[in-house]
Amino acid sequence: MRHCIEPTDFTSQEVRDLIALAEDMIARPAAYAEVCRGKKLATLFYEPSTRTRLSFTAAMMELGGNVLGFSDARNSSASKGETVADTARVVSTYADIIAMRHFKEGAALVASQYGSIPVINAGDGSHSHPTQTLTDLLTIHRELGRLDKLTIGLCGDLKYGRTVHSLIKAMSGFENIHFVLISPDSLRLPDYMRKELERQASLSYTESDSIETVIGTLDILYMTRVQKERFSDIAEYDRVKDLYILDEEKMALAPERMIVLHPLPRVNEISPEIDNDPRSAYFRQVANGKYIRMALILTLLRAAEGIALEPKVPRIAHGTHRGDHRCSNPVCITASEPLYAQYIEHNGEKLCAYCENFIG
Amino acid sequence: MRHCIEPTDFTSQEVRDLIALAEDMIARPAAYAEVCRGKKLATLFYEPSTRTRLSFTAAMMELGGNVLGFSDARNSSASKGETVADTARVVSTYADIIAMRHFKEGAALVASQYGSIPVINAGDGSHSHPTQTLTDLLTIHRELGRLDKLTIGLCGDLKYGRTVHSLIKAMSGFENIHFVLISPDSLRLPDYMRKELERQASLSYTESDSIETVIGTLDILYMTRVQKERFSDIAEYDRVKDLYILDEEKMALAPERMIVLHPLPRVNEISPEIDNDPRSAYFRQVANGKYIRMALILTLLRAAEGIALEPKVPRIAHGTHRGDHRCSNPVCITASEPLYAQYIEHNGEKLCAYCENFIG
Amino acid sequence: MRHCIEPTDFTSQEVRDLIALAEDMIARPAAYAEVCRGKKLATLFYEPSTRTRLSFTAAMMELGGNVLGFSDARNSSASKGETVADTARVVSTYADIIAMRHFKEGAALVASQYGSIPVINAGDGSHSHPTQTLTDLLTIHRELGRLDKLTIGLCGDLKYGRTVHSLIKAMSGFENIHFVLISPDSLRLPDYMRKELERQASLSYTESDSIETVIGTLDILYMTRVQKERFSDIAEYDRVKDLYILDEEKMALAPERMIVLHPLPRVNEISPEIDNDPRSAYFRQVANGKYIRMALILTLLRAAEGIALEPKVPRIAHGTHRGDHRCSNPVCITASEPLYAQYIEHNGEKLCAYCENFIG
Repeated sequence: MRHCIEPTDFTSQEVRDLIALAEDMIARPAAYAEVCRGKKLATLFYEPSTRTRLSFTAAMMELGGNVLGFSDARNSSASKGETVADTARVVSTYADIIAMRHFKEGAALVASQYGSIPVINAGDGSHSHPTQTLTDLLTIHRELGRLDKLTIGLCGDLKYGRTVHSLIKAMSGFENIHFVLISPDSLRLPDYMRKELERQASLSYTESDSIETVIGTLDILYMTRVQKERFSDIAEYDRVKDLYILDEEKMALAPERMIVLHPLPRVNEISPEIDNDPRSAYFRQVANGKYIRMALILTLLRAAEGIALEPKVPRIAHGTHRGDHRCSNPVCITASEPLYAQYIEHNGEKLCAYCENFIG
Repeated sequence: MRHCIEPTDFTSQEVRDLIALAEDMIARPAAYAEVCRGKKLATLFYEPSTRTRLSFTAAMMELGGNVLGFSDARNSSASKGETVADTARVVSTYADIIAMRHFKEGAALVASQYGSIPVINAGDGSHSHPTQTLTDLLTIHRELGRLDKLTIGLCGDLKYGRTVHSLIKAMSGFENIHFVLISPDSLRLPDYMRKELERQASLSYTESDSIETVIGTLDILYMTRVQKERFSDIAEYDRVKDLYILDEEKMALAPERMIVLHPLPRVNEISPEIDNDPRSAYFRQVANGKYIRMALILTLLRAAEGIALEPKVPRIAHGTHRGDHRCSNPVCITASEPLYAQYIEHNGEKLCAYCENFIG
Repeated sequence: MRHCIEPTDFTSQEVRDLIALAEDMIARPAAYAEVCRGKKLATLFYEPSTRTRLSFTAAMMELGGNVLGFSDARNSSASKGETVADTARVVSTYADIIAMRHFKEGAALVASQYGSIPVINAGDGSHSHPTQTLTDLLTIHRELGRLDKLTIGLCGDLKYGRTVHSLIKAMSGFENIHFVLISPDSLRLPDYMRKELERQASLSYTESDSIETVIGTLDILYMTRVQKERFSDIAEYDRVKDLYILDEEKMALAPERMIVLHPLPRVNEISPEIDNDPRSAYFRQVANGKYIRMALILTLLRAAEGIALEPKVPRIAHGTHRGDHRCSNPVCITASEPLYAQYIEHNGEKLCAYCENFIG
């Protein structure tokens, strides 16, 4: 059975197949309007994320399927102390596929190990959000016609911005990608991500602290939100938040065919005055999010067909080792559930198999 | 594209068409059981209103359509600071029609300006609640067989009662309507509403502070709830709340064919002892709410057909002027979103185009 | 019209019919995939119970029906002071059948009296939860092939455990049932329940404070959760909570064909190390919960067919007397709604007709 837990769970070819399927769904919606008749998607949202939840819901409905679930952990059995592992096993008897949003890192991986139906990670803490990444890839392909030979400006919160990290990882499967990292000094891309970039021959990067000086070179400008909740010092937030605002003046310096992306919601990092600029692709990006989720749901359900829905022995992921380490990340799912300690070896270092933090 | 933002958005003829469609749906439900197959209603409820939300949901389901959305702002992206304008654009990619409940006045109008699908106002603060008004009109028509030559008692909170104000506005399109305004002095109909009544040749009114003295003259007694949250002085509330309670004793004075309406939920303003009186029409009124919403949803979806779902330049409403005023109403949507200042000229006075408050 | 309010609402033959229908649904799901097309289930959950709500939702969807409702009282009109009686009448115009979870005892009975559609009690305070009981019975039948000649160990919180009390009542309709009551002294089965057991010729019981000494004699070991919220003294809870934990060591003493049941969610009363033991039936039990709810929904909808959905005069239950008593149970629905005082005579004692507490 296949799941979608990490943005790197699919090969480049599989990503291209998902994109092709999504584009066929856009071209011929009627052909897919009943393909999931009688199937059920469970949207298990332990923290609210209205946009993502509604996108999954709309996607399943456009395939003719049903949706059930919850939108907030306060309304779930989690408040009675049930583990993610048990919830996954239980929901496997109610639904055919799960989309899980959780505040703990690694939660969706646990669900995929203990449940007996495909699991899609709809965001696990600040760890991964692979359907956002797939959305970005579909948008790039639809807008620019290619997934290689791209200069991509990443702007805003590059330190905590999960979507940015995921996009970088996902682009490693494509050729000739140059990233321009645009951020204030306190929100620079973390060391381990820059090392990742340096390791990949197909990727390169430069850094800048100014949109204006680099915008003229870009195919894509990917804006992200500077989130107040990431700052311990509110004064620092107030100083930084307005520095990286995209407006008409800056757009005047951008190439005619550049596109502007944003995972949304935005606060003020993109001025509404450019919303009607044809290069502003962020609302089209939202629509693509629905289409790629349709393609993903259908692909995973097809992969699961023929597999009996019986409770199963926990699966061990490929290349995962069982050991005696404890992950020190306090928001890792292993901190709150009685899981076997597991790690992955990656470039000579040990990572927790759940949250992918380094183990000392 | 047509929306339903104000109770006056429809002409008298359009209201009659909606009522005729609703009555046909009641007579021949099977004929409409699949007309919205594959369509999606988004119920965007920024504050809880279970009855209204379930009525819209049931309506869409009886047309064969799907429903997605949220029931409380705490569970929405609004908590991350997204504007109504952006939410409307995003949800336009997920759904075919929106029903929006919001605590800010004018919010549904903003959604209709920035989204690209029909918007139904399911209540914006204490401003408008047009589907309640259409419910009332369908009920009057089904119960009494006409929408003119009516003596309508309005009882309870006439100062803040949104449903009462909307019903008065809606009745201005029909002939020979006499209102009897029954309220405590502190909850009398506001001046501007009484001026509105005086301006319309087809409308007249008298005032009373007693149900008993006027009930014998009425075709309709419209009861409303005296809401605790409207009073700054709780002692005043406690003194007033029990004065306008409808019970068996008062019903004994009412005409045999009079009907009692109430927007529900009631607290104690209608005694349960009259629930089985055949003149008590308030539970039948609830059922009519579902039917008129079915008619409205289908009518707006049909009007929208053929129109591409692309993000659009904000529309300027008919007769709306752009100016440099700022609305002073603190719960107007213009107080929290970066909207162009707009006003309407009405009887020589300037009203905010969003909340319809007077601009000094 | 039939409802499902108490576990004893169905005769033994009706229970057998429900089980047979559920087993046919399991064997031939396609035959039932559209039987509720166009029907609507209202899930009215005044307190969160995700598992139960999702089970009902999945059940209705597998019958081809629609689901609407709310998952928490904070999101309902209840916060505006509406009675359960009024809500039931209103929702009767939106839906075809109700599943109600309420924190007040007797609430589902009130809904069945004032609404005009079938009502299923999905849990009313600590009073009744009949669909859990039906789930247990289906599971016993599927796992062991019979509903009589059983030795059933009930372990954990037998004082407050609603599922345990309901199971005991339900088994009174079957022959040769022996219960082994396993609990700490402070959580023993209440006196009136033990009297109930002694009164029934087909039932017998023994008591024990140890799993190990009795597990070898059991056909079924029914584990329950010791809930923190039941203890006024947290220290007492901490001392007791770990005493009745089922693990590999104790399972080694159990018969080969014994099954372990649990209403879930569990906290730590069943160690995850036995999850893959074939005798652990609690995840299969969850799946059975969906199937028995499918059978129940279809059975009640069929029973209601031909009955017009008009608001009705409150029904008086069979054998119920109207009197002048007031129930002294503070969480009884009669404490918060203006209901006629009613009582049942049972074995010479008066019980409140709503919460079934004794009336002094």
